[in-house]
Amino acid sequence: MTRQKKFYLDESEMPKQWYNLTPDLPTPLNPPLGPDGNPISPEMLAPVFPMNLIEQEVSQKRWIDIPEPIREMLIQYRPSPLIRAYELEEALGTPAKIFYKNESVSPAGSHKPNTAIPQAWYNKQFGIKRLTTETGAGQWGSALAYACKLIGLECKVFMVRVSFDQKPFRKLMMHAWGADCVPSPGTETQAGRNILAQFPDTPGSLGIAISEAIEAAVSDPTGQTRYSLGSVLNHVMLHQTIIGQEAKKQLALAGISKPDVVIGCCGGGSNFAGISFPFMYDKINGADIQIIGVEPYSCPTLTKAPFVYDHGDVARMTPLLPMYSLGHSFIPAPIHAGGLRYHGMAPLVSASLKDGLMEAIAVHQNECFEAGLLFARTEGIIPAPETTHAIAGAIRAANQAKEEGKEKVILFNFTGHGLLDLMGYEKYMTGILEDYEYPTEEIAKNLEAIKGYPLPK
Amino acid sequence: MTRQKKFYLDESEMPKQWYNLTPDLPTPLNPPLGPDGNPISPEMLAPVFPMNLIEQEVSQKRWIDIPEPIREMLIQYRPSPLIRAYELEEALGTPAKIFYKNESVSPAGSHKPNTAIPQAWYNKQFGIKRLTTETGAGQWGSALAYACKLIGLECKVFMVRVSFDQKPFRKLMMHAWGADCVPSPGTETQAGRNILAQFPDTPGSLGIAISEAIEAAVSDPTGQTRYSLGSVLNHVMLHQTIIGQEAKKQLALAGISKPDVVIGCCGGGSNFAGISFPFMYDKINGADIQIIGVEPYSCPTLTKAPFVYDHGDVARMTPLLPMYSLGHSFIPAPIHAGGLRYHGMAPLVSASLKDGLMEAIAVHQNECFEAGLLFARTEGIIPAPETTHAIAGAIRAANQAKEEGKEKVILFNFTGHGLLDLMGYEKYMTGILEDYEYPTEEIAKNLEAIKGYPLPK
Repeated sequence: MTRQKKFYLDESEMPKQWYNLTPDLPTPLNPPLGPDGNPISPEMLAPVFPMNLIEQEVSQKRWIDIPEPIREMLIQYRPSPLIRAYELEEALGTPAKIFYKNESVSPAGSHKPNTAIPQAWYNKQFGIKRLTTETGAGQWGSALAYACKLIGLECKVFMVRVSFDQKPFRKLMMHAWGADCVPSPGTETQAGRNILAQFPDTPGSLGIAISEAIEAAVSDPTGQTRYSLGSVLNHVMLHQTIIGQEAKKQLALAGISKPDVVIGCCGGGSNFAGISFPFMYDKINGADIQIIGVEPYSCPTLTKAPFVYDHGDVARMTPLLPMYSLGHSFIPAPIHAGGLRYHGMAPLVSASLKDGLMEAIAVHQNECFEAGLLFARTEGIIPAPETTHAIAGAIRAANQAKEEGKEKVILFNFTGHGLLDLMGYEKYMTGILEDYEYPTEEIAKNLEAIKGYPLPK
Repeated sequence: MTRQKKFYLDESEMPKQWYNLTPDLPTPLNPPLGPDGNPISPEMLAPVFPMNLIEQEVSQKRWIDIPEPIREMLIQYRPSPLIRAYELEEALGTPAKIFYKNESVSPAGSHKPNTAIPQAWYNKQFGIKRLTTETGAGQWGSALAYACKLIGLECKVFMVRVSFDQKPFRKLMMHAWGADCVPSPGTETQAGRNILAQFPDTPGSLGIAISEAIEAAVSDPTGQTRYSLGSVLNHVMLHQTIIGQEAKKQLALAGISKPDVVIGCCGGGSNFAGISFPFMYDKINGADIQIIGVEPYSCPTLTKAPFVYDHGDVARMTPLLPMYSLGHSFIPAPIHAGGLRYHGMAPLVSASLKDGLMEAIAVHQNECFEAGLLFARTEGIIPAPETTHAIAGAIRAANQAKEEGKEKVILFNFTGHGLLDLMGYEKYMTGILEDYEYPTEEIAKNLEAIKGYPLPK
């Protein structure tokens, strides 16, 4: 065998610290604001999150130690392999070397357990008995169910209704790991009942489900329930940085000193942060690396939205976060990449774009599934719809390298497999997959609603 | 980190030869017999299989070289990891060390590509353009679809109609890899049309699907189509022996000179042969290793059937094979482990049992899903229903080690994940999963029908 395809790290080489981008940002991060327009204090988040995670959320430390018990659990599937996409390269006829970090190897099938496990562990340490959360396509909900079972917490998942109906297997996965999963909006919360009264046929959205999950957490009279979020927040970005740190070591094993292009798909921002922030650190320190976020054409947060203060959820229960946002009441088109259907973007990712550390592109659903199908037919693994966005971005970069005749090194994050999300492929192959246009009027309307909000610096 | 959980091999350490148990069997293998009761010649199989695979089928060579192009393709997912089941051990409170070989890491999610890739490659070498096969639950059909796409063959899968309707995701996987998957019986073959004329509402069966697939292969006027089988045959057992060979090297990495117990689930026999035959070689050469096949209680081929000559399929199109058989017209109860619903057993596995190289146990469906759920809630990965049988066997062995106070080393084959087969778990958890008894009368009736057949020595 003359070529090595997969690059593994020993378990002992799994990162011992998470990387926090916050202190390295060229422009200091704007603080989250409370209802009065003033920065919120950590204590104000205490009903929602345990204090040890709040400390991470506001930390200015560059490196944060990963507790040993968390590393012991992460080795159920980590370090994840870095894989050279030889077969894809050959199909494209590109001089580029394409590598992907295969985060689909976790029991839940995606990168999400990287933060689910630490979050569950910190909550348990803090004396919490039960976590609530929301999930779109179900990747996050199943990851948290898995983590809670490992650690010994109860888990309640509010799943966006359209996915709950279309993707019954995700719900069954959560059940297998002992979690309770209900469709959102539902009648268990005031937020859900309000939405249903207004829009009885709503397919739901992540924003609505977040409102329900937070309400369910803060309204527990015993005080032993907290809420867990799978993306957007600083501590979630933090936990995912093991991806990029591992990738860096693995690229070195492959004889690569640095990638030329790093690519991730963007929904709330966590997998993108995970793969890219460790390379942003290098970029901030002078390395020449192009970092690209790929988002759906129909939910163009990074490419079309303004940088504003907005709520993370429809019911406006979260603090105001400094981010690119299409407006908290924006409901994205029902694309198959449910995990990318989010109106906002993680403040840390938003700041990275604002500060020029990254760029963003928006890709149509058909181009993504075309890319995903080519990947499945060359590299074997069938990608999740979210992941096809990163692949489409990588293919664009590889084609550009071909045009330029440059032997670029492209790294992308393979966030999850698509075994439970195959309908999109079938629609693409039979020519009935919808492309959705930029929802210009929708965006304008939703942005109008947040016009009076404070503006970030 | 004080303990290592996962043991990987470098790609260069993937076995370079397959191990053929045939020459090492204490009693020589009985030959397959033709319709006239005489041993069939290799030429008689030529319309169905390419001659290079027929040569492997009848080979007496102990070690057979794996062609380098096949190894290049297998590294898309191999060597598969060997994993120490620490969390399961702790839950059981056993002194046993439990290891599992994780074959669920292939793109198709099971061990099946280990033979699908070589079979497709040998057919391509032989000038074949198109493969046909049958599939029950869909594991084998999707593995062959994946292999044919890698290698550049057309692939046609006849899928048992009831599974075709109930498990749409497997069909979608095959489509994603470019295969044509049709429900069986269908109108494309004479066999299918005959059955439909007689039983328009038939749910189909593997026997019917095999008949259709063989007919579709042998009736191609260009002669460029062959048939491919995912289990039972000698060359399929052969291809799977990379599993046990890798496991042996990986156990050595874990400081284990030999396992005390090796366990696999048994349907047609291929995964069991894969994990166990390399250890049978050691056993034949004096090593003290207990080798256990685990089968469904409702399909007790190894534990209750006689050793006879019987057909491999319901329609009696195959030669007579020397094996334990419940009778070729036996239709097993509709357990969730579709891949274990087979009336016979690979001749090589049957010979191993007959010669005392292995033993067998039969386990009820509820015990299996209980084991699978415990596994998912400790080790994380949700096992396929077939795989839960091996886990149930491993748990029994671990509990026995606990009773005996012995620190045994248990190795089992984790054949596939259960992400597309979650209904059984849901039924188990809600208490509505059926246990099926030994089908004593059914077996007697079906054995009566083969009473006049020749008997193996």
